[in-house]
Amino acid sequence: MLSQKHNDHQCPIAVEPKSGRFESLERAVVDGGGSLVSASDAAGLVWADAAKPHLLKSVLDASPKIRWVGLPFAGIEPYVPLLDTERVWTCARGVYARPVAEHAVMLGLAGLRGLATFARASRWSPPEGVNLVDGRITVFGAGGITTELVGLLRGFDCEITVVRKSPEPFAGAARTIAYSERASALPGADLVVLALALTPETRHAIDASELAVMEPHSWIVNVARGGHINAEALVKALDDNRIGGACLDVTDPEPLPEGHRLWSHPKVLITPHVGNTREMGVPLLAAHVRENVIRFSRNEPLAGVVSIQDGY
Amino acid sequence: MLSQKHNDHQCPIAVEPKSGRFESLERAVVDGGGSLVSASDAAGLVWADAAKPHLLKSVLDASPKIRWVGLPFAGIEPYVPLLDTERVWTCARGVYARPVAEHAVMLGLAGLRGLATFARASRWSPPEGVNLVDGRITVFGAGGITTELVGLLRGFDCEITVVRKSPEPFAGAARTIAYSERASALPGADLVVLALALTPETRHAIDASELAVMEPHSWIVNVARGGHINAEALVKALDDNRIGGACLDVTDPEPLPEGHRLWSHPKVLITPHVGNTREMGVPLLAAHVRENVIRFSRNEPLAGVVSIQDGY
Repeated sequence: MLSQKHNDHQCPIAVEPKSGRFESLERAVVDGGGSLVSASDAAGLVWADAAKPHLLKSVLDASPKIRWVGLPFAGIEPYVPLLDTERVWTCARGVYARPVAEHAVMLGLAGLRGLATFARASRWSPPEGVNLVDGRITVFGAGGITTELVGLLRGFDCEITVVRKSPEPFAGAARTIAYSERASALPGADLVVLALALTPETRHAIDASELAVMEPHSWIVNVARGGHINAEALVKALDDNRIGGACLDVTDPEPLPEGHRLWSHPKVLITPHVGNTREMGVPLLAAHVRENVIRFSRNEPLAGVVSIQDGY
Repeated sequence: MLSQKHNDHQCPIAVEPKSGRFESLERAVVDGGGSLVSASDAAGLVWADAAKPHLLKSVLDASPKIRWVGLPFAGIEPYVPLLDTERVWTCARGVYARPVAEHAVMLGLAGLRGLATFARASRWSPPEGVNLVDGRITVFGAGGITTELVGLLRGFDCEITVVRKSPEPFAGAARTIAYSERASALPGADLVVLALALTPETRHAIDASELAVMEPHSWIVNVARGGHINAEALVKALDDNRIGGACLDVTDPEPLPEGHRLWSHPKVLITPHVGNTREMGVPLLAAHVRENVIRFSRNEPLAGVVSIQDGY
């Protein structure tokens, strides 16, 4: 039996090609109980460089024993033509959710507690700020980031509303609301967090009519995609004091051009798409690879298995 | 029996004198099941204006039935001469801990995740930032703020070290270290939070020798008193890239004068002593008063009883 074999021996894994993440990934394989071998002897292959899909085919052709290909990055579009059914393919989707959720918490707190004012002040200013603790949050999206966000906020005793495609319950949320009814999730919310996928339907999820029903003290945080917010409607709502402010880790266009009105807006904080940085990702990817090496050697289902049909 | 009597009837409570908090405190008394009466008929007195200690003595002299005096504010220094043993005196110490702890979390996250840079940028900048999740925090102080801080960070899976007078265990902390050994609590910490009382002994708790053993990426957050940090040593450590940065809600002197080097330092975020604002305090004080009215009417021990000997 396969699982028998891999319980008795260290699982032979190759890491290719050389890259900035190479050493960290090799260590992860060893930490997971794998033995590092060349690709031709490997049962599993961890592909170390997201930018080199063109090298992968020849490695696979020369390495018939490989039954698992681990792509330890989230976006695998260039690899889709290579996917096959002879091997199990995995990617690292969801692995970045935790740092992105942390960034959303940081931005939400910073906005509510007045940092857009204070961080730019050069003198003692009058007090301002609203608490998040015991407050109400509405989160758009019900994926990995939202799961992590709910977990991070466990100690904050917030009432959380999740807006998702269909209103099935979401663990840790007081209520869920269908995306089509999203405007009803906004009144009463101190903080609105966007953590959903961008599709034609969710473009401008936050437009003038949504901004109109938000609370005057409420802040909006976007860690998803710039296209979720109608930037023109946002600037108008901010100028009219219709909402408290906006913290944007993503913009439309992105990068936000110099001189754009949002850069200098006193009620806006912008971070340059750093919800997950490369440095934060390295240990998370390593943990993902380590976990999959353990599972592979035990013949257990792998994390992040790619669907050939969906292409992710 | 007293408790019997107060279970059968609404407890007579006076709120005096008129102030900005007066209505909120009257509502709190009613919410706690008390009946609002004049001081001469009251069993309990809620003193509504921290700035008017000189009025209290005559009210008490004219109101012999009063057995409980509630001072719903944290600092009661001007009231110490009035304390007596005939009545129970309470104050609102610890009531502000939760917003202050939230502010500390906000500042810590903002510092680590690069907001000192990003909030002042007017163009897309290179990524920077360090995670707090799964990181290590050292907190100076073992009072209400630290208790709340540990609670808020429940979802962050941090390893927390508490530095306190004597190293008794602290709930939720991985270890406690005696104040005299504080330098040993700093290496390895991603974040250092000051939440202790200012005494002659804790002045300059963070001085050149402490800064010298902090991590190059670590941030320090001060929500206690400005005098805890040697500001000159801090500026030098920042200029020498010895630590990641500092977020200060309190300064020395305070308010920090215009033109002070810290205002313009790229690795410093300053907030104007807004850990707890007046607006945040109002509902918290109301909840404190409500709870004490309930306890008083049931003849249960009150929250925040003042020790005449200690004067707080």
